[in-house]
Amino acid sequence: MNPSFPASTSFQHRPKDECGVFAVFGHPHAAEITFFGLYALQHRGQESAGIVVNGDKDRKFKSHHGMGLVPQIFNEHQLSKLPGTRSIGHVRYSTTGSSTLENAQPIVADCSRGQIAVGHNGNLVNAHVLRDELEAEGAIFKTTVDSEVILHLMAQPSNNSGDSILVQALCKVKGAFSLVLLSEREIIGVRDSLGFRPLCIGQVDGAWLLSSESCAFDIIPGAKFVRDVEPGEIVIIDENGLRSIKPFVPKERLGFCIFEYVYFARPDSTLEGINVSAVRTNMGRELARQHPVEADLVIPVPDSGNYAALGFSEESGIPYDHAFVRNHYVGRTFLNPSQLAREFGVKVKLNIIKERVKDKRVVVVDDSIVRGTTARARVMNLRNAGAKEVHIRISCPPHRFPCHYGIDFPDPKHLIANQLSHQEIAKYLEADSLGYLDAEGMVRATGRDENKFCMACFNGKYPVAVNPELEKLVFERRQTRAESLIFAEEAAPRLFNGKI
Amino acid sequence: MNPSFPASTSFQHRPKDECGVFAVFGHPHAAEITFFGLYALQHRGQESAGIVVNGDKDRKFKSHHGMGLVPQIFNEHQLSKLPGTRSIGHVRYSTTGSSTLENAQPIVADCSRGQIAVGHNGNLVNAHVLRDELEAEGAIFKTTVDSEVILHLMAQPSNNSGDSILVQALCKVKGAFSLVLLSEREIIGVRDSLGFRPLCIGQVDGAWLLSSESCAFDIIPGAKFVRDVEPGEIVIIDENGLRSIKPFVPKERLGFCIFEYVYFARPDSTLEGINVSAVRTNMGRELARQHPVEADLVIPVPDSGNYAALGFSEESGIPYDHAFVRNHYVGRTFLNPSQLAREFGVKVKLNIIKERVKDKRVVVVDDSIVRGTTARARVMNLRNAGAKEVHIRISCPPHRFPCHYGIDFPDPKHLIANQLSHQEIAKYLEADSLGYLDAEGMVRATGRDENKFCMACFNGKYPVAVNPELEKLVFERRQTRAESLIFAEEAAPRLFNGKI
Amino acid sequence: MNPSFPASTSFQHRPKDECGVFAVFGHPHAAEITFFGLYALQHRGQESAGIVVNGDKDRKFKSHHGMGLVPQIFNEHQLSKLPGTRSIGHVRYSTTGSSTLENAQPIVADCSRGQIAVGHNGNLVNAHVLRDELEAEGAIFKTTVDSEVILHLMAQPSNNSGDSILVQALCKVKGAFSLVLLSEREIIGVRDSLGFRPLCIGQVDGAWLLSSESCAFDIIPGAKFVRDVEPGEIVIIDENGLRSIKPFVPKERLGFCIFEYVYFARPDSTLEGINVSAVRTNMGRELARQHPVEADLVIPVPDSGNYAALGFSEESGIPYDHAFVRNHYVGRTFLNPSQLAREFGVKVKLNIIKERVKDKRVVVVDDSIVRGTTARARVMNLRNAGAKEVHIRISCPPHRFPCHYGIDFPDPKHLIANQLSHQEIAKYLEADSLGYLDAEGMVRATGRDENKFCMACFNGKYPVAVNPELEKLVFERRQTRAESLIFAEEAAPRLFNGKI
Amino acid sequence: MNPSFPASTSFQHRPKDECGVFAVFGHPHAAEITFFGLYALQHRGQESAGIVVNGDKDRKFKSHHGMGLVPQIFNEHQLSKLPGTRSIGHVRYSTTGSSTLENAQPIVADCSRGQIAVGHNGNLVNAHVLRDELEAEGAIFKTTVDSEVILHLMAQPSNNSGDSILVQALCKVKGAFSLVLLSEREIIGVRDSLGFRPLCIGQVDGAWLLSSESCAFDIIPGAKFVRDVEPGEIVIIDENGLRSIKPFVPKERLGFCIFEYVYFARPDSTLEGINVSAVRTNMGRELARQHPVEADLVIPVPDSGNYAALGFSEESGIPYDHAFVRNHYVGRTFLNPSQLAREFGVKVKLNIIKERVKDKRVVVVDDSIVRGTTARARVMNLRNAGAKEVHIRISCPPHRFPCHYGIDFPDPKHLIANQLSHQEIAKYLEADSLGYLDAEGMVRATGRDENKFCMACFNGKYPVAVNPELEKLVFERRQTRAESLIFAEEAAPRLFNGKI
Repeated sequence: MNPSFPASTSFQHRPKDECGVFAVFGHPHAAEITFFGLYALQHRGQESAGIVVNGDKDRKFKSHHGMGLVPQIFNEHQLSKLPGTRSIGHVRYSTTGSSTLENAQPIVADCSRGQIAVGHNGNLVNAHVLRDELEAEGAIFKTTVDSEVILHLMAQPSNNSGDSILVQALCKVKGAFSLVLLSEREIIGVRDSLGFRPLCIGQVDGAWLLSSESCAFDIIPGAKFVRDVEPGEIVIIDENGLRSIKPFVPKERLGFCIFEYVYFARPDSTLEGINVSAVRTNMGRELARQHPVEADLVIPVPDSGNYAALGFSEESGIPYDHAFVRNHYVGRTFLNPSQLAREFGVKVKLNIIKERVKDKRVVVVDDSIVRGTTARARVMNLRNAGAKEVHIRISCPPHRFPCHYGIDFPDPKHLIANQLSHQEIAKYLEADSLGYLDAEGMVRATGRDENKFCMACFNGKYPVAVNPELEKLVFERRQTRAESLIFAEEAAPRLFNGKI
Repeated sequence: MNPSFPASTSFQHRPKDECGVFAVFGHPHAAEITFFGLYALQHRGQESAGIVVNGDKDRKFKSHHGMGLVPQIFNEHQLSKLPGTRSIGHVRYSTTGSSTLENAQPIVADCSRGQIAVGHNGNLVNAHVLRDELEAEGAIFKTTVDSEVILHLMAQPSNNSGDSILVQALCKVKGAFSLVLLSEREIIGVRDSLGFRPLCIGQVDGAWLLSSESCAFDIIPGAKFVRDVEPGEIVIIDENGLRSIKPFVPKERLGFCIFEYVYFARPDSTLEGINVSAVRTNMGRELARQHPVEADLVIPVPDSGNYAALGFSEESGIPYDHAFVRNHYVGRTFLNPSQLAREFGVKVKLNIIKERVKDKRVVVVDDSIVRGTTARARVMNLRNAGAKEVHIRISCPPHRFPCHYGIDFPDPKHLIANQLSHQEIAKYLEADSLGYLDAEGMVRATGRDENKFCMACFNGKYPVAVNPELEKLVFERRQTRAESLIFAEEAAPRLFNGKI
Repeated sequence: MNPSFPASTSFQHRPKDECGVFAVFGHPHAAEITFFGLYALQHRGQESAGIVVNGDKDRKFKSHHGMGLVPQIFNEHQLSKLPGTRSIGHVRYSTTGSSTLENAQPIVADCSRGQIAVGHNGNLVNAHVLRDELEAEGAIFKTTVDSEVILHLMAQPSNNSGDSILVQALCKVKGAFSLVLLSEREIIGVRDSLGFRPLCIGQVDGAWLLSSESCAFDIIPGAKFVRDVEPGEIVIIDENGLRSIKPFVPKERLGFCIFEYVYFARPDSTLEGINVSAVRTNMGRELARQHPVEADLVIPVPDSGNYAALGFSEESGIPYDHAFVRNHYVGRTFLNPSQLAREFGVKVKLNIIKERVKDKRVVVVDDSIVRGTTARARVMNLRNAGAKEVHIRISCPPHRFPCHYGIDFPDPKHLIANQLSHQEIAKYLEADSLGYLDAEGMVRATGRDENKFCMACFNGKYPVAVNPELEKLVFERRQTRAESLIFAEEAAPRLFNGKI
Repeated sequence: MNPSFPASTSFQHRPKDECGVFAVFGHPHAAEITFFGLYALQHRGQESAGIVVNGDKDRKFKSHHGMGLVPQIFNEHQLSKLPGTRSIGHVRYSTTGSSTLENAQPIVADCSRGQIAVGHNGNLVNAHVLRDELEAEGAIFKTTVDSEVILHLMAQPSNNSGDSILVQALCKVKGAFSLVLLSEREIIGVRDSLGFRPLCIGQVDGAWLLSSESCAFDIIPGAKFVRDVEPGEIVIIDENGLRSIKPFVPKERLGFCIFEYVYFARPDSTLEGINVSAVRTNMGRELARQHPVEADLVIPVPDSGNYAALGFSEESGIPYDHAFVRNHYVGRTFLNPSQLAREFGVKVKLNIIKERVKDKRVVVVDDSIVRGTTARARVMNLRNAGAKEVHIRISCPPHRFPCHYGIDFPDPKHLIANQLSHQEIAKYLEADSLGYLDAEGMVRATGRDENKFCMACFNGKYPVAVNPELEKLVFERRQTRAESLIFAEEAAPRLFNGKI
């Protein structure tokens, strides 16, 4: 085994959540409802958030963005300054663009079509090409977010193709995109043709809602889920109600991100008609069948392994137990306690209840192993607490490939499954056994067909072609051009005041 | 049933946590370790926190206090300004004294014995009497916290009884007190003779630690639990190490708060030699035996019912499930989202996964019902989600009486069990059945003898006499005295400038 | 007299300062020097400020903007995150664009010519026309500041005229502009052909500086003033040093804002070769000659009347005195004390020393009367303090017309001189006499020729044509266009789930 | 001359202001009026401020304290939480006690006489003795401010002397004290028998006011000055109006701080019946007579030399001019710009207008030279700006001695006049001449008798005896006592768990 793996000992090792979008059309408390919607979608992005409203009287958009968690950014005072009945919101974890306030979404712009704001969940794989083309024609960019490209495309003069400007724009972008758009007349929801990212429709008090996940509807009293936006569908909400168009040729082979079921989505969301927690419990059952083990206890890593552990316990008959206790206040504040924690080596996140694992053979169930450092520390802590055997079960296959559609995995060379064989991983983790659910079992747990899913991070098959030479950050890391704004010949050196 | 109950519809209805104390003697990172200790004890008090250190060079105490959560109050910069090898800390939920910065503990004072700081978990039942006596002799009070009385008593001239000043002071106070004291020479831990509140001893890197609960030692690398401070014991830590005295006559009948096991303490703490989560699982088993029911699922209210639900499931054979999902970011910020939430009626705290409870008979396990409003809403939500039957099981007896030893229950008239009969409660909650664990079962779950415990909140038997006329806030609500600082006869009216 | 004048009783009535720009090329402490430069230019804009640096290693621009005063926005920590040897900065009082963080300058953009940042002092009179044209071609705007137009123009493809892109852009804009530009290769300073706003060149430690006013060089140790940028001149600073071009036909009739001498500029600045305080003292002398009066004291309104009062005293022989005392801490904080002040009618800004004016005939010298409300209150306060006579002398002519070149005067209907005759004003102010310096005297005080100056706010003669129908805020107040992003025919209503 | 003087090159070198007090009795906006009063007294203390009100309904005192400037600490929201018709306030620069929030005044306490709050301007010379006595009797101290002693004395049981408790307390304290006291029944103003610090009475809308200086009344509309509190007088304001007592034997020899006239007080205040600015102008006249010089200009150091310079100009016939320009925004913010300034050597505070001093012989008038470093830099700057000669005139004698009555001068060894002879100072400053006003001239300028004043900082004659061995900070720097709270014999070592 490569003894130097992993080179990085970064403290944060779970894949970073991506983004969440939410929209309200036609409610007197549009900003407040958007606030609660984003609040329920907080797990999809903890870096920055923003809300844009279409102001009541002057139709002037009003917006507020900030860095941090939703309730750190918005309070009642802030929300009271966002009047209007139409609103879109966004929570973000950067997949392109640096993590700065300028890059917080929704992005707002003024153009020949009036004011437009866009919130984007996903990742465009040809953003850099489009941006180069747009800049060559005179465009200026204010952010390093790929979503700004969409705004530029919508601001372009029409090509007289007979298509609306939005359809013209969407014809040009490639990749994963679930969008909410606010114009001066309407709110629009868009999902790319392969349907990488979720987007669904709800209603409350006669107003329309759009949300990345259905769980956001559950915390708004009276709100109800209507249906998913379909892959390739555009829904337009204006004063005449909700209409739908499907301007693109439907795809046979879809690309819904299966990792949403495994990991990202909240267990109480229903995606593509199936409840997430139910899929996870199924995955646990499959896992128990594929990797049975004699043991005394099944313990989930809270809360990521909760439902798979229930399924594993049920299928295997091994009792379920809570041996890990979370420090509930972790991450609740401005101080990142992990900074101090790292320095002092303090185990802030999870504690083990020794009395529950002492002299026991335990099965630890989780939804992923990324770098492996945390899993390894956990095994060691369990042994120190007296566990006789430690068996690790993961409710999906090993991660070997980067995601180009909106998930920020570590660099492949930090993915343990990309670097080590199955046997080497088990050895590195010092586990008594290690079992990953295979792809077939994972798909079976969803009850749907394999060709509905993108599983590129597991199998490297990318449904939308990606230029392999381009790394994700090409969008902002490109070479500076250092062009002078003045011709050399224009500027003759010139003496003045005898000094220069 | 009394239709007007409950009069109050307050959103916050769980008994408020009380206080937590922590201390370090002899470690170069005393303040940092105290920070992590308080961090682990955060569940015992979320209102304010403070750390006092005995500064290195000049022996001058340095302190920082603030309102809010531990990591909101302290950051690396703040901690770097608290140098020294000795430190005590406190997290507080007010049981006496208003919730203000002035009242944040540890309280620091300068007196004839030098600087002293005190952190207190518990409640003194004769604080008001002692305060009146002290004031009559000339004392001035700067806080409305009962702990300030202890400082005053230690500042008094010795009574030449042969006892040390601390023992003299402790002879006068009555009630519940687990104390950490910082003097210029030592750190002292004290537990009252009945041992109402926990306090334990640990070690790390040769330094001594004191903590309200053992879980705080688990997050400090290398730290280990040594033993509990015993009821009536005083432990003195100075440069010569740790000594112990037991100056008071030992009591047969002790008063350890059994509600610490049921509710307050972290499941990973070991109190009086028994792990808290194990007691809770036992309680669930007892509950299943006392109140069996035919059902499809046992679901805990997360996380308060987790361990009792495991015991209930195990004993009854009914499968355990997670049907509730928490909004993880609730309470993590300065904005209290519940303010907006109340206004919009938003269900921010728990969401139900409909798919898991639909057409099921469910047993909901929790550790208490206080006002009943939340439990009732939960039953209704479960029925709306499709549950066929909802059975409620509570892992302790009904709460009928106020606590005078450090727990802030609502006024008895808001305690549902104080106002309604068992049948009326079940009817009010609209549950199909309701079962409380009885006192015998609760005690049996601890494996200890009944006479070790205070169960006053359940049975009204107060181990230390309480003046029934005194309500908890007497300490700060007493009448103003409005005495003039000037004698009337001294001040003859006097004209000046012809104007007055 | 119109008894209803003034309709508005706004507390703030002095013309608002406009903007200030600063730049550094080639200094290891570029951001820090820019900080101090902006600090000295704070009087030119107190609403927001920003600094952009060309980062050392990756040439990536880094920036920080904020609302408030320069030292409220920047601290050592912030400045340390702005590394690089090239920097431009801006302080702003909005003349176009709302007062929001998005509108803070310098504006930064990425375009086909790389990164560009611009800071602008002045006002473009054709910004709205250019913006409409740019939007028709597909541009999107992120601010409501006219300066963003300049960035767009520089991002356009070249017209192959042989001119550099900057010269092409400048050929299109009309109005007042002193600019500092940061590109990836250079820093550029530009002054419009009429030279409305000042801009000058300095040096420190071999590095080049640009500043709105020379006073900024005085607070940087070792820095020295080199010369003014001339009207119509472009100075380019890159690694080869400073070059200058004058691509435009020189103008006979210039337009330097004479109000800079009267009011805006700091007295210690030297503009167009003449010290500002000296001009003001000359104005006071002219005023004494034009409007002599028998009196006992000349008192300046601090600090705006200080130098004119010295000249008036010197010429008239009437002793100079300080009868007004300022509250030095006014405006120093986040709380606007004037809000409370208004409510309670508190006189926070100036106090009168009664003992100095009692039974005296006083001449009060100031640099302007805008609405008249403050001047009137001051007369009343002086009479209450015992002054026998109050004579008002103003060191410039009455303001009757709006400024379209960068100064934010109140609406003409709130300008007292636009509404009332000289006699009516004197009566309204309840002054014993009132004297304004006439235009000839004002010009004479500068020692320069009348055709060097813009005096449009006094005489209504606008050196660059202004569309009289356009008010200043047209740029952001234009009609919403409410264009749909989707063609109606594209979106056929569509049933789904049987629900809609 | 000692070339190493001054050892310290501290940036801040003016004597630090001391404290200011304010009180309101009987006004519905008591806290707001106190806010404005403190705002006007801000020059007397910029470190911390506090307001205490006697709450309307429950008579419970409410208070708010903070570090910083008055409007940084209080805003409308804060003030709205301080209801009540009686209020006292304090601005502080620490003369005893560290600069911490705990030490912010007014200090509030609860004692046998109810709640009492005290705000103190001055310094008690026997505070440490009284504190030792009080502690020996059992008192505990929460601050390191000498004013806390006063509260303790008032809390003591009466000595049955027939005097009220306040008079009993005042009989014990020695030194300088102008006090405002808030009890549950009254507001009391006290001035020590020698009258070191000012205190005066005002009225507004029928309510009574107390203030350190009369200028505070001028910014409150309708408020008027009534009279000074006399040395040794106690004024008691309660629901029956204002009464006065003079319980102490009047002193022949008083001790009003003459430095209040020279330096501390605002020029628009009237102290002991004389306007401060008038005294300063007189001092300038005396100075011109004592130290005449041939010169072209008299320039004040703004604003400290303004009035003396006017007097000097008038008496000498040399024209007055403003050659220094202040950076108005200095000190307005949280960032101390002087920190960066020091590092870069930036001249942030005053700029010289070269054009006004070029080839001129200038007389620079100021109110003090403390360390000499600033004065020296100023001379150098004037010469660099082209001044032919620089003559320094100071409107008081050299400072040679520390103040024990409330002013925080630097350590005597940093006082230039304590270390160097007159000739050496002139040489050090590199001035062409140097003239200090002598004590006789200074007293003459006040128009009062020498025996009314304390001039100890000039002549070392201390009106109240001071223990020469005690330095000012003895109060907080005393030795730690390190007494154990436990007797050694009580605590027998004790093994437990076999571990210790």
